Amino acid sequence: MAASKIPDIVIGRLPLYLRELTQMASEGREITSSQELGGRLGISSAQIRKDLSQFGEFGKQGTGYDIQFLAEQLRKILKVDRIWDVALIGAGDLGSAIAHYRGFVDRGFRVVAVFDSDPQKIGQKAGRFIVRDVSHLEQDLRGMGLRMAMLAVPAGVAQEVTERLISAGIEAILCYAPIALVVPENIKVQYIDPVLHLQQMTYYLD
Amino acid sequence: MAASKIPDIVIGRLPLYLRELTQMASEGREITSSQELGGRLGISSAQIRKDLSQFGEFGKQGTGYDIQFLAEQLRKILKVDRIWDVALIGAGDLGSAIAHYRGFVDRGFRVVAVFDSDPQKIGQKAGRFIVRDVSHLEQDLRGMGLRMAMLAVPAGVAQEVTERLISAGIEAILCYAPIALVVPENIKVQYIDPVLHLQQMTYYLD
Repeated sequence: MAASKIPDIVIGRLPLYLRELTQMASEGREITSSQELGGRLGISSAQIRKDLSQFGEFGKQGTGYDIQFLAEQLRKILKVDRIWDVALIGAGDLGSAIAHYRGFVDRGFRVVAVFDSDPQKIGQKAGRFIVRDVSHLEQDLRGMGLRMAMLAVPAGVAQEVTERLISAGIEAILCYAPIALVVPENIKVQYIDPVLHLQQMTYYLD
Repeated sequence: MAASKIPDIVIGRLPLYLRELTQMASEGREITSSQELGGRLGISSAQIRKDLSQFGEFGKQGTGYDIQFLAEQLRKILKVDRIWDVALIGAGDLGSAIAHYRGFVDRGFRVVAVFDSDPQKIGQKAGRFIVRDVSHLEQDLRGMGLRMAMLAVPAGVAQEVTERLISAGIEAILCYAPIALVVPENIKVQYIDPVLHLQQMTYYLD
């Protein structure tokens, strides 16, 4: 299978399928169908079958999908059949909330270090972590061999911190700052900006 | 212009254009082009021209877009040329971070009430707010005439709270719980789940 040829938009739906399958498994369910999965996610069953067929044969016509098996396969495809260590930059309100969040580790991720530039925060606790001095960012990240980071810093410094992350070997960044980062093509970036979602909804409110 | 016919995916890009134009304006810029805008956003200039042309004629061939004018038009189209009052449900770590966040009001939104079910939180402060008892959710929301809510509650109660929000007149929900909500067709829902973004990136990490 030529994994590199699969469109990003298909890859983008796989975590959603995995989340829903995990939810079904936690409800004690064993078998599902593309119809049911689609109904729960608001995606057509044809789309789901087409997406999954890009990676192999996961169900039989008429018998549906084995939930545990399909979830395991998706975890392998997405490479979350392991735990990824992630650095968190920014220990403000949002960074602290991320440091406290317990929903990462079940799904493949573990925050292992928190950095900030504020002398009042450095050395203090954020979740289970002692906040590190961001001036040691490069050496600490290299020392830990980290490849992923979450960025919860103000927009005004996000680009600068991003460049330092990349120079320290970070290959994938989840950016919470409301700004478009400029990165080399080999670096993956995803964004979380709640206002973009809110503005998308007001369009539809008369 | 037949606004209702414009695809959701086009509407979804408008807030991104608006954010970038606002950023350019803050840099003292007056004129931009679809090429420049596209370059900054990683979107093709043809896509940007096509998206904008659905709403009218905003630039002249060869002279580019007036940044202030285009931003104002986008604010009108997205209906964020006004301020929307929003309820926040959940005053845990994430809810508190949202309550403290100062990036909403410049972009069209204002949190006006925070609710929680935890007796230890009710009556305490979260940002500028005194946390309200979620058992009064319906009467409080109706009293305030709110139409939008942000949901920062555990996944296990998100569906139940959603149903109460809808019965109280809420029409648009930004859901931070990692779950797909079941809502009537006339209700708008958008989701924020950082793990979906992280899992989308690990696929590409060898």
